[in-house]
Amino acid sequence: MNPTQTTRKISPTGAQLFTEEITLEGHIIDSWALPKVFDAVMDLGGSFELLDIRVGRRKDEPSFARLKISAENEPQLDRIMTTLQDYGAVLVSQHDVRTEPAPANGVLPDDFYSTTHMPTQVRLGGKWVEVQNTEMDLIITVDQEQSAARMVPMAAVSKGDAVVVGYNGIRVIPPQRSRQHEIFSFMASDVSSERPKRRVIEELAREMRQTRERGGKILLVAGPAIVHSGAGPCLARMIRAGFVQVLFGGNAIATHDVESVLLGTSLGVTLRSGQSVEGGHRHHMFAINAIRKAGSLRQAVESGLLREGIMFECIKNNVDVVLSGSVRDDGPIPDVAQDMAEAQRRMREAVKGVDMALMIATMLHSIATGNMLPSSVKVVAVDINPAVVTKLADRGTFQALGLVTDAELFMRELADALGV
Amino acid sequence: MNPTQTTRKISPTGAQLFTEEITLEGHIIDSWALPKVFDAVMDLGGSFELLDIRVGRRKDEPSFARLKISAENEPQLDRIMTTLQDYGAVLVSQHDVRTEPAPANGVLPDDFYSTTHMPTQVRLGGKWVEVQNTEMDLIITVDQEQSAARMVPMAAVSKGDAVVVGYNGIRVIPPQRSRQHEIFSFMASDVSSERPKRRVIEELAREMRQTRERGGKILLVAGPAIVHSGAGPCLARMIRAGFVQVLFGGNAIATHDVESVLLGTSLGVTLRSGQSVEGGHRHHMFAINAIRKAGSLRQAVESGLLREGIMFECIKNNVDVVLSGSVRDDGPIPDVAQDMAEAQRRMREAVKGVDMALMIATMLHSIATGNMLPSSVKVVAVDINPAVVTKLADRGTFQALGLVTDAELFMRELADALGV
Amino acid sequence: MNPTQTTRKISPTGAQLFTEEITLEGHIIDSWALPKVFDAVMDLGGSFELLDIRVGRRKDEPSFARLKISAENEPQLDRIMTTLQDYGAVLVSQHDVRTEPAPANGVLPDDFYSTTHMPTQVRLGGKWVEVQNTEMDLIITVDQEQSAARMVPMAAVSKGDAVVVGYNGIRVIPPQRSRQHEIFSFMASDVSSERPKRRVIEELAREMRQTRERGGKILLVAGPAIVHSGAGPCLARMIRAGFVQVLFGGNAIATHDVESVLLGTSLGVTLRSGQSVEGGHRHHMFAINAIRKAGSLRQAVESGLLREGIMFECIKNNVDVVLSGSVRDDGPIPDVAQDMAEAQRRMREAVKGVDMALMIATMLHSIATGNMLPSSVKVVAVDINPAVVTKLADRGTFQALGLVTDAELFMRELADALGV
Amino acid sequence: MNPTQTTRKISPTGAQLFTEEITLEGHIIDSWALPKVFDAVMDLGGSFELLDIRVGRRKDEPSFARLKISAENEPQLDRIMTTLQDYGAVLVSQHDVRTEPAPANGVLPDDFYSTTHMPTQVRLGGKWVEVQNTEMDLIITVDQEQSAARMVPMAAVSKGDAVVVGYNGIRVIPPQRSRQHEIFSFMASDVSSERPKRRVIEELAREMRQTRERGGKILLVAGPAIVHSGAGPCLARMIRAGFVQVLFGGNAIATHDVESVLLGTSLGVTLRSGQSVEGGHRHHMFAINAIRKAGSLRQAVESGLLREGIMFECIKNNVDVVLSGSVRDDGPIPDVAQDMAEAQRRMREAVKGVDMALMIATMLHSIATGNMLPSSVKVVAVDINPAVVTKLADRGTFQALGLVTDAELFMRELADALGV
Repeated sequence: MNPTQTTRKISPTGAQLFTEEITLEGHIIDSWALPKVFDAVMDLGGSFELLDIRVGRRKDEPSFARLKISAENEPQLDRIMTTLQDYGAVLVSQHDVRTEPAPANGVLPDDFYSTTHMPTQVRLGGKWVEVQNTEMDLIITVDQEQSAARMVPMAAVSKGDAVVVGYNGIRVIPPQRSRQHEIFSFMASDVSSERPKRRVIEELAREMRQTRERGGKILLVAGPAIVHSGAGPCLARMIRAGFVQVLFGGNAIATHDVESVLLGTSLGVTLRSGQSVEGGHRHHMFAINAIRKAGSLRQAVESGLLREGIMFECIKNNVDVVLSGSVRDDGPIPDVAQDMAEAQRRMREAVKGVDMALMIATMLHSIATGNMLPSSVKVVAVDINPAVVTKLADRGTFQALGLVTDAELFMRELADALGV
Repeated sequence: MNPTQTTRKISPTGAQLFTEEITLEGHIIDSWALPKVFDAVMDLGGSFELLDIRVGRRKDEPSFARLKISAENEPQLDRIMTTLQDYGAVLVSQHDVRTEPAPANGVLPDDFYSTTHMPTQVRLGGKWVEVQNTEMDLIITVDQEQSAARMVPMAAVSKGDAVVVGYNGIRVIPPQRSRQHEIFSFMASDVSSERPKRRVIEELAREMRQTRERGGKILLVAGPAIVHSGAGPCLARMIRAGFVQVLFGGNAIATHDVESVLLGTSLGVTLRSGQSVEGGHRHHMFAINAIRKAGSLRQAVESGLLREGIMFECIKNNVDVVLSGSVRDDGPIPDVAQDMAEAQRRMREAVKGVDMALMIATMLHSIATGNMLPSSVKVVAVDINPAVVTKLADRGTFQALGLVTDAELFMRELADALGV
Repeated sequence: MNPTQTTRKISPTGAQLFTEEITLEGHIIDSWALPKVFDAVMDLGGSFELLDIRVGRRKDEPSFARLKISAENEPQLDRIMTTLQDYGAVLVSQHDVRTEPAPANGVLPDDFYSTTHMPTQVRLGGKWVEVQNTEMDLIITVDQEQSAARMVPMAAVSKGDAVVVGYNGIRVIPPQRSRQHEIFSFMASDVSSERPKRRVIEELAREMRQTRERGGKILLVAGPAIVHSGAGPCLARMIRAGFVQVLFGGNAIATHDVESVLLGTSLGVTLRSGQSVEGGHRHHMFAINAIRKAGSLRQAVESGLLREGIMFECIKNNVDVVLSGSVRDDGPIPDVAQDMAEAQRRMREAVKGVDMALMIATMLHSIATGNMLPSSVKVVAVDINPAVVTKLADRGTFQALGLVTDAELFMRELADALGV
Repeated sequence: MNPTQTTRKISPTGAQLFTEEITLEGHIIDSWALPKVFDAVMDLGGSFELLDIRVGRRKDEPSFARLKISAENEPQLDRIMTTLQDYGAVLVSQHDVRTEPAPANGVLPDDFYSTTHMPTQVRLGGKWVEVQNTEMDLIITVDQEQSAARMVPMAAVSKGDAVVVGYNGIRVIPPQRSRQHEIFSFMASDVSSERPKRRVIEELAREMRQTRERGGKILLVAGPAIVHSGAGPCLARMIRAGFVQVLFGGNAIATHDVESVLLGTSLGVTLRSGQSVEGGHRHHMFAINAIRKAGSLRQAVESGLLREGIMFECIKNNVDVVLSGSVRDDGPIPDVAQDMAEAQRRMREAVKGVDMALMIATMLHSIATGNMLPSSVKVVAVDINPAVVTKLADRGTFQALGLVTDAELFMRELADALGV
């Protein structure tokens, strides 16, 4: 951690101070960027001086602020600066981004820059270049010759790759806060089961229809409770009507879907009556074995074994399906990626271009997906457990909508509102 | 605790043993009465000898068992016998019920018998007499002259009343387990948010229609989340269509209903859009004041102030409403019973003849109500918190249905299934 | 709603505009007062012009802002102004507070001002006067002769009382945000069961010791789970050591405490082993009857029936106990206030001078208490249900600490940290 | 599904009936095996005749029953018989177990027998042979030459393997219900946060000490909340003192442990104070990179980078650690198994000989582990979410203990009770 361009000066108490000047522009008071910057500097033990401020006279005018940030040592200044950048702070001193070579495959230099899920630019040869593949907790590698930069996972770094370090020459563009009322302006702290959901579901349906009409992509991350609770047919109809372009899930949702189609049960519970079938716990093993015998879900559809259901509709409607394994899986069904690096690679590929993501009743796959989504994607998190919804919806942006509700009844209301 | 009719004998170890003979009849293996009796005797430190057993050869034949129960002292035998009676055990030695006079108003003799919520008989002058007013955790007073007995709350006992003590001459009739599949056979341990609810809601709607058609009474215990979540109009329509004869709630449901009618919000949240109204936290105070000014909810309806909503429909449709106060109430609305003894008295009066009770999203009023209901009443408990549902549905009978789900969406689906 | 001092002018579109000028002073950016004001004006459909702003150059300098607020009609301006006052906005136009006479006992004029839990002043005869009895959702009555004002509940208003209306001449003083790290700076959104609690409990214990040493008052709002879980003796020791001056609870905590002392069980569960005692559900009825026979908890202590436990220690150590009834109570114990108006009156009396409030595992009594506490009281909310903690800790101030944890183990750790 | 040895006869209505005779022996009333058999037959639409019953006269005498089970078709009888076998029913008609060859690698014959987690025997050449590797939801393969049988996962079956089908020649031995009070007799339905835990923790500690003293194996399945909450050092001390022989977890627990050791934080929250470190979300990436640089956790210990913590103690004390990957992992740390088949293989190897399993605050790994454990292993499930505890503790045996509590405070109390 040794940024070299820091200004040193002597503090009143004789201590050497390390300083940087930053600017903030836009709706920085309205969207709380300025107070957050004040907060962060103080929380990290630094201090600031407000060199210039121009506050918009009216709500449609942008504001501007210039601050001098001081810290007592370089690592502290480093921590402050990387934090402020997440709120949109831009360094006044203009330098190119710094890089260091990766010391080994999958290993980073110590001072690596860790990305946010917001659009990011790096300065290469005096020009600001857009970083490709926005995703949180990745690192940035630079191709100087191509004047290109992209975000990659740690494990994908090869020895010698130019990895961005420090905080110079990096610009993060936080989302502008929307002034109009919309359902995605709910923040995590609004998460509650007592709010009216019917209207929210109607607005969501409208947004989904608009997305479909303009050829956008909707990702659905689906937990097995959708099938258990009997809402599988609702989801199948939504897929058939074109409201799902990408589907993420695990071995469970596929298995239970197959079990429901072949045997009319899910985990041995009859979906029509909700009664447990004695001995029905063998049903999911039977379903898995049936698909293993067919070869794959696609072959099961082609052979006529699977004639309806979620997986059937996905295959018939060319939905991009990624099924990721987990350590608790029985079987699994042959389509499930059992290697986690492979599963993540497929998911990263599939999320490209996604406009909206619905995460229904699955914490594991939803968190995995949430980490991969840029801040521009609208996220809807639905779970009956408030802790799960808060975790998923709390992304520090204005694009998330958390609903604490019942997955079955949510899917029914949504299908109804979509007219499917 | 001094039952006098106990048989004493000397145990093999020389210790004096206290014994009683009991019989069990009916589907005592199938409904697990016999294993439960074995369990209870052992858990309480007693022992048993199986004197006679005749097990039905087929599932439609009743069984019979006669057991000798032994304990090392009288209090132990007393505890065992009062417990076994709850499973339907009947003493072979036939004695009249014993009573002692209450030592003061609202005070019981030490050895008082505490009731279950199951039909109960006492033996008076050699005859078995039905005890009036089945309710849990009450005591039984006897009117020897009238050959009558009834269950009363502790606080309603007057000095000198003949209070049943001990376990002699008491017969409890546990519900017979139904063999046919029905939704009320779900037990508390089945409580889960992952079960299919749509079919259950349809069966519930059918049961409600049948109850209405035969002139039965349906009790709805309503939490304020019904209004917050925007499902108030669903409930109002259900009331108008005759699906609610008795409504229990608190100051909150009435206040939020009035707020929603007069201002379109609930606790300051706009019900149409789910957006918080800044400054809207004053709205519920405004609603309470409006009713206080009108004099009462009825007067607010008659004066034309209230023209729709839950309370409006209750008053227009002669629903028996009991609003019970709580220590957290603002205001309250004048119709709310602020004295808890008075509130319980009104509720006890209103539950008479109730056939079915729906408890939606309110723990306090639901527990209060649940304690008052005899085991013959079918109970549906709905809450998004599984712990609440388990607590309400776990009544030790086969007449409870617990649903872990969203109150708003449940009410919408139910209204839909009822065709209102 | 007819404030008469509003300035009218013609808007660019020809519409008449209603405007007010306000000022904000202090750490208005740092404590997010200014962004909140911007937010509120826009959310309520008004507009603002920033007439003057002086932002502190350093974090220890206060800031100042003057704004012109515009609305399209008077009720809108009224709503905006009453909201902005909650963030500390002060009207530039200086007028005395307005009042209207209450139209009847317990009934308010329509335009009544509803209080916050923050210190509030009203302008009487040109002077700012402190309003007595800070509490949320009350109203303010003025005694012009005495130049005095106080907050009172709606039900306590008598016909003709001078009730504050509108927004003129009212000043609310929001808490200044503390810069130093302290446990009470946790906000509701930090509520999580995964945070380290041991250190927090140690800091809480230190704060409690300091409060005790300077003669401060600690209020404990206690749920029955404290006794069920076996942590009753921990609380009893805390009381004996002087860490509780006021105790709030219901019939349940007292009953279970008595049951645990007299019979060693709570709701029929043996506290030493956690095993259910068959037939033990009668125990709580026995405990209630025992106190009814004694006459009261105090008489039970004096007669030697109660020789230990929470209630015993409260009586021996002159703790101010308020037991409030609820509609689900059995019995109740004679000390329980069954009239809710009376219960609230006793609680309001007892919270006077309280410095810190611990709310443990009881939603009903905690919400009732929370509504009565001024913002200066430090509030600790402990529950295993995150929704309850969020509800209690989310008071819009920096004085609340929410812990999602197990009441039993929390009480043990706290008793340990207090050295009792 | 074509069992060939079924007796056919003509029913009274002229329909052909398929029947089997079974026997039940042991504490079949007391442990509810007999009522469960009655239940299951009726729930599955069959009927039974009780041919013989001998009920033990005293609680220490075993009982015996012989039943004729009838069904209307073979698949129904098949379903009934496989269900009854799980309750210990033994066929009177003695046949060898039937097998069919697996049609392909990892594919089973349709009528495969799916295992329980109870000890199981199969009849080979007229002799009852113990099936190796007890685990739920596996299948049984037979080696006729070796007169051996073992349970294997579906994916491990090779084409041509002799897979057990149907229900003939299979004997399941359900656990005998313990009469003495012990903590593991708590069943899932007892799961509650309100029960006293201190005594239960003390008994658990005693049991763990006994297990250690007799050289038994204790498995700990550890969720990351143990580190987040600051209880990592408690676990480290338990490992050092020999109370953990096998540790299961994921990338998260290892990462957070390393982060806590190297940086003093967990997910950027300072473990000493519970305060969030601004910018601390990069810390876990730093920790992962540090171990990737070192090569592995073991190399990090050997190089002196890791000098304390959970992973350090595991490596120093030869604890068998299996870290299983998941699709949400960052990094991961090199020791994490990213292939799920490999992870399960390692876990299956490591659970061999385990006597007790503690599952703390991790649903994914706990369910994965629970599926692998035979019914003889004592299982303790700890989580703050009641739904998780119910799911884990509800194993249909008398060997599970569920605690709804706070992982941090549980670990502290347990470490305290263990004297570490």
